[in-house]
This record gives sequence, structure tokens and C-alpha cells, in this order.
Amino acid sequence: MAWRVKEERFNKENIVNNGNKFITGNGYMGFRGTLEEYTKNELVACNISGLYDRQGDKWREPINAPIGTFTTLIVDGEEYSVLSKEPTQHTQVLDIKEGIHRRNTEWDREKGKVIIKAERFLSLSNVHLICLKYTVLSEETCEIEINTGIDGDVWDINGPHLENYKLENDDEYIKVSTLTQELKVPVVVAEICKRDFEAEETILKTEKSVLRNIKFKADAGVEYTIYKYVSVYTGNDETKNIEAECLDVAVKAAENGYDKNYSEHVTKWNERWEVSDVIIEGNDDDQLALRYSIYQLHIIAPVHSNKLSIPARGLSGQTYKGAIFWDTEMFMLPFFLHTSPEVAINLVNYRIRTLQGAREKANYYGFKGAFYAWESQEDGQDACSDFNVTDVFTGRPVKTYFKDKQVHISAAVSHAIWETYKFTGDDDLLLNGGAEVILECARFYYSYAYFKEDKDRYEILDVIGPDEYHERVNNNAYTSKMVYNTLDIALKTLEILQDKYPEECLKLLSKIKFSKEEILSLIKFKEKLYVPMPDKKTLVIEQFSGYNQLEDCTLEEVKSRLLDPKEYWGGGHGVASTTKIIKQADVVLMLNLFKNEYSKEVKRANWEYYEPRTEHGSSLSPCIYALLSCDIGNAEWAYPFFVKTSNVDLTGESKQFAGSIYIGGTHPAANGGAWMSAILGFGGLKIQEGKITIDSKLPNSWNRLAFKVILRGEKYFIDINRDSNTGDSKVSILKTS
Amino acid sequence: MAWRVKEERFNKENIVNNGNKFITGNGYMGFRGTLEEYTKNELVACNISGLYDRQGDKWREPINAPIGTFTTLIVDGEEYSVLSKEPTQHTQVLDIKEGIHRRNTEWDREKGKVIIKAERFLSLSNVHLICLKYTVLSEETCEIEINTGIDGDVWDINGPHLENYKLENDDEYIKVSTLTQELKVPVVVAEICKRDFEAEETILKTEKSVLRNIKFKADAGVEYTIYKYVSVYTGNDETKNIEAECLDVAVKAAENGYDKNYSEHVTKWNERWEVSDVIIEGNDDDQLALRYSIYQLHIIAPVHSNKLSIPARGLSGQTYKGAIFWDTEMFMLPFFLHTSPEVAINLVNYRIRTLQGAREKANYYGFKGAFYAWESQEDGQDACSDFNVTDVFTGRPVKTYFKDKQVHISAAVSHAIWETYKFTGDDDLLLNGGAEVILECARFYYSYAYFKEDKDRYEILDVIGPDEYHERVNNNAYTSKMVYNTLDIALKTLEILQDKYPEECLKLLSKIKFSKEEILSLIKFKEKLYVPMPDKKTLVIEQFSGYNQLEDCTLEEVKSRLLDPKEYWGGGHGVASTTKIIKQADVVLMLNLFKNEYSKEVKRANWEYYEPRTEHGSSLSPCIYALLSCDIGNAEWAYPFFVKTSNVDLTGESKQFAGSIYIGGTHPAANGGAWMSAILGFGGLKIQEGKITIDSKLPNSWNRLAFKVILRGEKYFIDINRDSNTGDSKVSILKTS
Repeated sequence: MAWRVKEERFNKENIVNNGNKFITGNGYMGFRGTLEEYTKNELVACNISGLYDRQGDKWREPINAPIGTFTTLIVDGEEYSVLSKEPTQHTQVLDIKEGIHRRNTEWDREKGKVIIKAERFLSLSNVHLICLKYTVLSEETCEIEINTGIDGDVWDINGPHLENYKLENDDEYIKVSTLTQELKVPVVVAEICKRDFEAEETILKTEKSVLRNIKFKADAGVEYTIYKYVSVYTGNDETKNIEAECLDVAVKAAENGYDKNYSEHVTKWNERWEVSDVIIEGNDDDQLALRYSIYQLHIIAPVHSNKLSIPARGLSGQTYKGAIFWDTEMFMLPFFLHTSPEVAINLVNYRIRTLQGAREKANYYGFKGAFYAWESQEDGQDACSDFNVTDVFTGRPVKTYFKDKQVHISAAVSHAIWETYKFTGDDDLLLNGGAEVILECARFYYSYAYFKEDKDRYEILDVIGPDEYHERVNNNAYTSKMVYNTLDIALKTLEILQDKYPEECLKLLSKIKFSKEEILSLIKFKEKLYVPMPDKKTLVIEQFSGYNQLEDCTLEEVKSRLLDPKEYWGGGHGVASTTKIIKQADVVLMLNLFKNEYSKEVKRANWEYYEPRTEHGSSLSPCIYALLSCDIGNAEWAYPFFVKTSNVDLTGESKQFAGSIYIGGTHPAANGGAWMSAILGFGGLKIQEGKITIDSKLPNSWNRLAFKVILRGEKYFIDINRDSNTGDSKVSILKTS
Repeated sequence: MAWRVKEERFNKENIVNNGNKFITGNGYMGFRGTLEEYTKNELVACNISGLYDRQGDKWREPINAPIGTFTTLIVDGEEYSVLSKEPTQHTQVLDIKEGIHRRNTEWDREKGKVIIKAERFLSLSNVHLICLKYTVLSEETCEIEINTGIDGDVWDINGPHLENYKLENDDEYIKVSTLTQELKVPVVVAEICKRDFEAEETILKTEKSVLRNIKFKADAGVEYTIYKYVSVYTGNDETKNIEAECLDVAVKAAENGYDKNYSEHVTKWNERWEVSDVIIEGNDDDQLALRYSIYQLHIIAPVHSNKLSIPARGLSGQTYKGAIFWDTEMFMLPFFLHTSPEVAINLVNYRIRTLQGAREKANYYGFKGAFYAWESQEDGQDACSDFNVTDVFTGRPVKTYFKDKQVHISAAVSHAIWETYKFTGDDDLLLNGGAEVILECARFYYSYAYFKEDKDRYEILDVIGPDEYHERVNNNAYTSKMVYNTLDIALKTLEILQDKYPEECLKLLSKIKFSKEEILSLIKFKEKLYVPMPDKKTLVIEQFSGYNQLEDCTLEEVKSRLLDPKEYWGGGHGVASTTKIIKQADVVLMLNLFKNEYSKEVKRANWEYYEPRTEHGSSLSPCIYALLSCDIGNAEWAYPFFVKTSNVDLTGESKQFAGSIYIGGTHPAANGGAWMSAILGFGGLKIQEGKITIDSKLPNSWNRLAFKVILRGEKYFIDINRDSNTGDSKVSILKTS
């Protein structure tokens, strides 16, 4: 059964990567796939969604809560930790069906083994709760000490973020309460530890941690188990008394006992998989990789809150500043739209909620309307720095233009709202802020655009497209097309409102002071906006004005010019900047988004032109190449890209550095891309005006692809079976309960 | 008498700098201030104006001709050269009144001295001719050998440029004929050597050189002198038989003898100084520095040809690719306009002649009209590379935007034509190409500009202003104002032509397909072009949109961030790029050019704001600060900038590197700036509509400033005498013959 990720020996070098690979989460928090004895040195993190802190003028980033599962083992006065003592057996397992992390570690002593078995989960039925079952066994009689409690000395990249540590305990619980240092938001972790054996227990407190020392005489061959119930709360939670409620969750969980918590958690996971599982027959590796990708999306989905979205590195730590990028709208949203539209609506609501931040950003740069943050944090403020890369040769920050020139973000937001609206048919989305966001984005682009008189057209100048290696370009095809799309949906939105909700429409226009004249400007803007078209001979669309004049050299040639493996390829001095080598799908992304508007020949010509020139230096890239090659009927071109995108967090083979800045972590956009590649690509699922069509082309090794889709309240089961002799597929689409 | 530049001891470290400091020239060629025994290792160069060559894909640069003055001395078998034997006495002198280079070098031997005296000049009466008088004396009887001839192994930065060496000699002459390797242009050097003593003479030939070995027994205390007549011709000379004519010049010069050549040369120099000398009384250092600046301008002035202009490093070598920059139009032209308008017209004609190159450049970048080369070579092609700086940390070329974004060059050309037209009143200048250039420049700007609808204005986007440290900026005040100026003079030019030469006007408009509609577009463009204005409160004009948001730190702070003294301050990674520190006068240059349009308060506010933020990293900067402070009546602010600009080639204290690229040489723009600072600044000379006004403010140490000006055929002598007690000045303006 392809439901397990496993590592069967201990390798120190994999610690960081395994932190991502074996991650668990529940949308409220993510917990890196680390072992119980690890500390911040091994990058343990209980990463909280949507709570940020800034230390001095360092980068603002999400906070990691104190670690309530921290546990070390001492046998006859000697520490048993994989870090200090090589184990003779070791397995680490992630059960993605049930969201459980397990480890089993054995050491040989003179007269027998010492074994640790641990199992933990971040509860899906109560997102504040972490449960750990930790069992020790010695094959010989010995003196055992377990130090377990809350390790408040957390890992931070740009910290420290927590201060004002308050350590508490009574007979039952221990508790660490802190405040974030910037905004003084409370962060509280309570723990209750139960055991089924007699022991001497004392409390140890250090500056930031509270630990229990559990000491007992262990009989040979007997399992001694402790059960830890850890509760995490922050000031962002909508509750009156955080401290009390936090403690209460731990107390109740302990009362219910481990097995009840476990089964409630598993029930929730079963519900998730019931709609979202995808069956691939014929290739077990692909089956696991795709399920793993879906797992990664589930553990970060903000099911519990309509105020949160998903950071670009999920909840795997503080890289990418824990910020929300266009990744969410363009790469993750489709999965949620098709399998849990309520999460999709939450994601879109995050952007509606943060409109004010986008307005302020536009205003700061001298524009009107809404210019969404490139790296969005809780209130939509832009966490992106003007110096987002560090030069490896001088150690100096490098001026980058992601923040001010990657204007396509506002179009991604509008696009996401519109796609969600179309998918759900839910007018409320437009009425409750969606229309306002779309209009403000259109307004932003009008104020950003310039008119070129001698060519009688508007142009979108000085931008960065998806391919970030080429900064400050004019007429980037993707960006201009997305601007066009924004105008199109803004005008459609206005039509819908005027038709169906004339009063609300007037109210909205008056609220945001959107005049008749401004609407006419948008109409003209749309009519005369220049969007690069396919070249008449080659059919290739020039990525931006002047791209064709750049040096046309191979990816290998560009790589050979690197003097440092970590150096940044783009920007002022990058090895790719002056060449045609691009970071990721750009024109090809545009063609994939607007596939109905371009011929197969154009799509093919651009795929063939750009693919060899694409580094795929972003995890957002392979899935798009997979999708477009499926669209032009070529599953075999697509297949290696599906493999790449669906395995990114299993292999850990992804870019770890931008300049000298660490960018590791999980890759939810690639995970979303894996789902899209399988369902929208190989499966060929299309939903238009409430109708499902399937135009599948499965890879050679797949015999079956089966999945469910939720569409406007109805659930459909789609089963594609491919006859391996004829290659023909039989498709069935069943409405299910 | 302040007419001599002198160095009184030999210092190896000064060899490169003295090559610039002691330079001689005649507009056809420049000869670096090196000693006769030097070779390419000491950067000897006979640099030819207007003849370029490109080796492979290296930078195109001017060629250096074979060195016909090369001479070494051997006494009793031992070489006497400053390089191999430390002299006991040594003086090197440049006589700037007569354009003569002299050296006198003595070595002590056991029984007496050995002395070399040499004197040479590049004839001003025949620009192909170099004369050298070389005298040896030994205080004891000895065996002397003089090796003298033509050293064809020339110094090249991006060479070799010469090939196909043909070495000839007969009883009288020796000759080296070569071809440039790119365009196969002949370069021929002939030499005739006369002597007034008996000797045994043999010819030595190497691969590229022909030398005479002159051997004789020298009596004690007797001077032995050789006279060399060297002639230089290239295929650029308008002559049928280069080889014959080259030889002929040497033969005739030898027949005439050294003294006659000398006196003809000096006569020409006297004529030059008669109109151009400036007398400063009260400060001999300033007197010398200013005369030296004027000397530098004379030796590179293309008096003999209307096809040439002046390279940014004069004729001091191959740095700056021997190319013509805006330096000529904006910094050197005023000197020539006021003292030798025929040279000014030649300079302007160079731009008229190279219009086609400017059209091709505009077309290459997708624009209409004339986009002049940032670094212009013989036919107006742009020698500027897209990678004009080398990164000191990686050794890699850095993408720069001088070539494609420094669009103000076309405005400088238009401005120069217009200023020359206004000064000379010569309609022919407009009729014979001047008007065409001006209209094509205006056309270029219209096709470059964008209209910003919501602000109802045209903007000039994505440029580099004079301050090159800030690349790709919008609405650079200097550039936009210069564009406005171009439109203004284009419309004025059209008016003049329509009024006075309606037929020629129609012919021109039809030739360049300039429609009525296009004229109307220019009128609207001028009317609605955005030119940044003084801030209402501070009166400061923002250098470009967004400048005010840059980091405001001190020059010292920026300097302290340098990790390598040679690193480039601008561009993608430069230490200045993200700060308010600017390379050179930018807004202040604009205010100085259009001084009548801004109040004294505005000029003062901007001077005070920008001066502390200016690195003066360009030799074009100090003179502008001097000029504007004189304009606001503050001679004492101006004075140190005058000292800096007038001494730049005497002290050699200027930037020697841009990144790791050597940019040393002479600084004619700074020399022109010295003249402007003295005459237009301290002298306060203004000529408007043919009328001379003087509003002088002399520096404290000056009692008198006297100079001549040629205005429309009339010569005026202006004498400003300052009473050192009262500080009041008496001014007399006399028309002279």
C-alpha cells in the first residue's frame, strides 16, 4: 500500500531534509519531521500559521512555538540519542493516510537492546493538540530516566522572536507562556504527561524550558510508555482566556486518553482522503508521490480559519518568511477548488481581508488601486525586502525588484477570485469583497500602464514576470496577458453586479469612488492593451520586448559560468540575466492558463522553444510544462515533469539557496502542481459552466487513474481505465454520495 | 612665466602619469609624454585621431602608429636608459607655449658625465610631421652607438591592430608600412635622420621595426646631434599615394632643416595663443593650470579636418575606446565656440556626418529618428559595449546600460548644433544637415516617450542621466529637460526654415518624411512633457522619480562599504546604486545649462543639497559645481572646483579604474570645464544675441582676468581688473584686430 514514507537507517546528513520530508501538520501548525531528542540545532520547529514577528531590522518571519514533545532518554546514566550514539536499528516512518509520525530506534548494549518507539500526530480534530506516545524498553534490567517537557529554546532564523518567558507547573501540567517581541502576542504551550508505570518525577526548569525528570527501575523486556498531550495557543486565536483554554485542551485530551484522540484524528483524515484520494494503478512510485503531494496540501490547509492562507514553504519553517506568494492562487488553489471548495474560499478570503494592505502598497509606489504584496503576511503588508538576495562574493545584500516590479501578483489574486467564483457559482464571493478586490486590481493596472502613442497601444512596462532572472522588462507576455485578464474579469464582474445586484453595485462603486469615466478608461485600456502575440513564422511568443536579442546559449553553458554553486542566477550580475535562459515557465504558463485561446501549434512551438531554455530553478516550473504537454496530447513529454514535481519533497532535490540565503523547506506549489498534472493534465479534466469533460492521456506505465471531484455540492467519481494492449481508455463519471 | 610643466627627477612610478602630463599633439595625432628610449612597456603611443580597429570580439579602439622617434644610447657597450641606469640628473619639460617636449638626462661615469638632450614636437604647420632633435655628449672620449629608427611594436590595449608589416629603407629613409587588421587601412611611418657628424651607420631590421645603428668615436665634451623627421600617414588621409606622400613629407622636412620646421610650428602655436590665452594675475598656479588646460584642448582640436571630433581621453591613448562622448558637445565646445568657431563647426559637423549611424542605432532599438552613439567612432557606430565594466570580484563582465539608456546624448548633439548656430549665426549649419539632425533627434524622443494618461503627461522612462550610478531611472530631470530643449529647438528650427528657406524646408521635410501630423505631435509632446520641478518647500528638484526614497547616507559611509578600491560604484551591485550618492553633477548640470529659467534660490538650494551627495567620480563634475556657484555669486564655493578641474591632468589625481578596466588618460572635458569655470564662471561672460555682458566675481587671490573672444568674425579683448582693497572690479571690453 502506497501510504508510507520510510527511512530505514539513521543518517546525520539527512536531518535537515527529513525535517521537511517527515513533516506533520493540521493547518494551524506544522511540525517538522524531527526526532524527540532533537533541539533547535537539528531544526526542530512547531511552526505556527499566520503569526509573525520581526526582530530589529531583520526579516519578519513566522514564529516557532516552544516544543512540547521534547524528550530524551538516559539509561544507566548514559544518554541514548541518535545524535550521540549510533543506533543499530532505526526507522522513521510517516503514515500519510493517518498523518502519523513514527520512529523506532534500537541500540545494542552488552546484554540486550534498548528500544525507543514513538508515535505522534498533530490532531486534525483539534488543531491545538499534539499527541505523543513514547515507549522505552530495555532487554536488561536498568535504571531509566526520561527527561520530557517543553523546550522553549526554539529555532529561529532571524530571531529571537519570543521573550518574557513564564514557566509554570503543578502536579499535573507544565506550561510555557511567552510573548512575541514585536507585537507582544502571547504564545502558550501546555503539556500533560501520563504514564502507565510507577516512577519518581521531578520538575527541572531552565531559562526557557520546563522538563520532567521521570526516573524508574526498568524490568527487562518491559515496555514503559508515556503519553504526552501538548496544547498550543496564540493571541491570534479567537478566545478570551488563552492560558486557561490552552490548559483545558491538554487536560481534556489527557482525560480522553491517547487512543480516543488518535481515532478522532484518524476519522478526520479518512474524511479528507475520501474526497481527495487519487488512485494510480500501474506505477506504485507515482501513486505514493502523488498521495504524498496531496498529504502535503492537507497538512497546511487552513480548514479551521478563513483568515489564513498558505505560505510558499507551507508550515515547514521560517524560510520565505512564512509569507503567502502567488503560489497559493496559481498552483494550490485548483486542488482545493476541486476537492474542498470551502478551503479555496478561505484562501481567497485571505486576499479579500488584506485588500487594505494592497491599497497601501499601491499608494506607497504612487499608484492607485490594489497592488498585492509579493510576500504577504498577516495583514497583507509586504514582507519582501528590497534586498532579497545576498551576493555570495561580497556577502552584501543585492537590490532586487521582486517587491516593486512583480506586479502580476494582483492579477493572480483577481484570477483566483474569479476562478473560485466560476467554480462555486457563489455570488456572495463577489458581493462580500471579491468584486471590490477585482476592481481595485484593474484600477491598479490602469494607473501602472503607459500609453505608447506612435503604436496606439498601452504597454505594461518595467516588470518582472514569473521568470525572475530577467528583471525590469517591458511587455512581459505573461504579465500583460494577466493584466488583460484582470480587465476582462473586472468588466464581467461589473456586468454581473449591474445585472443582478444593481443596488449593491452602486454602493460598491460609490464606496471605492469608481466613476463612469474610470470604467470607460478600463474598456479602452483593455481594447488597446498590448499583449505579445505569436511570431508569424516561428509561432513563438517573445517572453518580453528584447528577449530575442539576448544571448542564446545552452543551460549547460550558463551553468559552466558559475563560480559559486550558491550564486544567484538573476539580477544585476546573474549568469542567466543576459541570456535566454529562464528560471521557470513564463510564456508556457500563460499558454497553459489561457489554453483555449491558442492553437495547438502555438502551444507546441513555445513548449519546444522554451523548455530547453528553462532552468526549472523554481519548483513552480515542471508542473506547468507537464500540463501544457498533456494539453497538446503528449503525455510522455509530460511524464518526467510530473515525476519531478510530485517527488520534490520526497527526494529533497530542489534549490536550497538563493545567493547565500537558505530557501529550503517543503514545496506546496509543486505539490499542487503534482495534483494538477495528474488530474488536469493526464486526466484531462475540464469543468466549464458546471460540466465535466475528460480528455485523458495516461502515461505508458499507468493503467488506471481514478479520483473524485466536488462540484457545486455534488461529488463525482471519475475512473479512467486504460487498456494496456490497445492503449485506449474507458472513462466513467459517476455522481456519488 | 607660467608656460612650463616640469619634472626634475626621474621616478619610475610616474612613467604612466607623465605619459599624459607631458603629452604633445596637433589634432591629427597625440604623442604621449614618454622618453625616447621607452617602448610599449612604458606605454609609448603615437595615437591617431579617427582611425579605429577591432581585434576579434575585443573592444574597438583607435590605433597607435609605429614610433618613429624611438632612440637608445649605448656608451662603451653599455646602455644608457633611465630604465636600466638611474640618472644623476633628469628633467622633463613640456613647453605649452610652443608645444615642445624636452628632456635632459645625465649620468655620472668615472671620468665625467654622459648627457642626453632631446627636444621634439608634433608640427602644427604640418600635422603629419614629428621632429626630434637628439643630442649626446660625453665628458670623456668614448665609443657611442645610437640605435634610432621606427619601433613598430606598438602598445595596444585590445590589439594587435597592425599587421602585414612592410619594412623599407634606402640610403636616406626608413619606412614601416602596415595595415589595420579589421578594415585593412594602411598606416605608414617614414623617417629621415640627419646628423652633423661622421659615423658608421648600418640598418637593423626586426619583425616590426627598422633601426639605424649609428656608431662613432666621441670626443670629450663635444655635442653630437641627430635630427629626425618622422612622417605619419594613414588610409584615412585624403590623398592618392599615401606611401609617396608620407615619404615626401619627411624628405621636405629634412631639406628644410630642423630650425625652419621648428619656427613654422611655433608660429602656428603663437597664432593659437594669440586668441585663446587667458591671463590670470595674482595666482601663478592657477595661471599655469588654466593655460595647461587650454593647451590640452589645442593639441587635440581637429583644425585640419571637418570629419573628426575629440575623444573623451583626447589623443592620450586607447582608453575609452578613443570614442567621442557627450563630453565634446557639453564640455569642450564652449571653448572652441568662443576662441575658434571653425573648430566648433568641425566638431558639430562630425555629428552631422554620422547621422546615419544614429538612425541605425535608433532603428536597432525599435525607435525612430536619431539615437546617437554613447561612444561614437568614425561613422557614428556605437563602440559602447553592453558590458562596459568588469566586476572586480568575479572578473566577469557586468551588464551596463550606458549604450541603450543614456538617451540624453541625442539632446546634447541637438543642443550643440543649436548653440553653435546661435553663436555663429550661420544658417548654413542648419541647412547643411544641422536641421536634419535636430528634427531626427526630436523624432527619436517622441518615439521613446510614453504617455501617462491618468497624469495627462508624457514621461521619459528608463534612462540613465549624467549620474551613471543610478541606472534605468524614470523622469530624470536632466534628461527630460534636455528632451524638452530638443523639442523646443526643433520647433524653432522649423520656424526659421519655414520663414527664411521655405523651399529647403519642404525639401528637408519630404526627404525625411516628416509630416504635418508629426509636427503637431511634437508640439503636443513639448506641451505635455513632464520635467521635474523644484519641490515647493525645499526647492530641491528630485533627480529622478524615486530618488527621494533612496538611502540618504554620506559619501564617507558609501566609501566605507567598498571591499575593493577598484570596484564599480554603480549598476546592479554598486555601493552607490541604492543610495543618494551620485557620481557627478546631474540636476546641477541642468540648472547650469538653463540658468535663466531658475531662480537663484532654486539654484542655491540644489547646489547645497546635491554637492555633499556628489562623489565627483567623473572629471565632468567639478567644473559644473564651479559654474553654478559663480552663477549664484559665490566665487569662493567655486574656487576649489576650479582648482580641481584645471589640475586634473597635472596632478594625475583622477579615477583610474571602472571596475577592473583601466580608464586613465587625459581629461579634455575637465580642461574645457576649466576654461568655462574661468571665463563663463569667474569672468561671468555671457553672449546673448550677439551682445557681450560681463558679470564677474573673481576668486580672492586673483587681481586680473583677461581673455579674448571671437564673436561672429570680431575679436574682443576683455580685461577684468580687481582692486584688491575694495574688491571692486573694473571691466573693459575692447574690440581688437
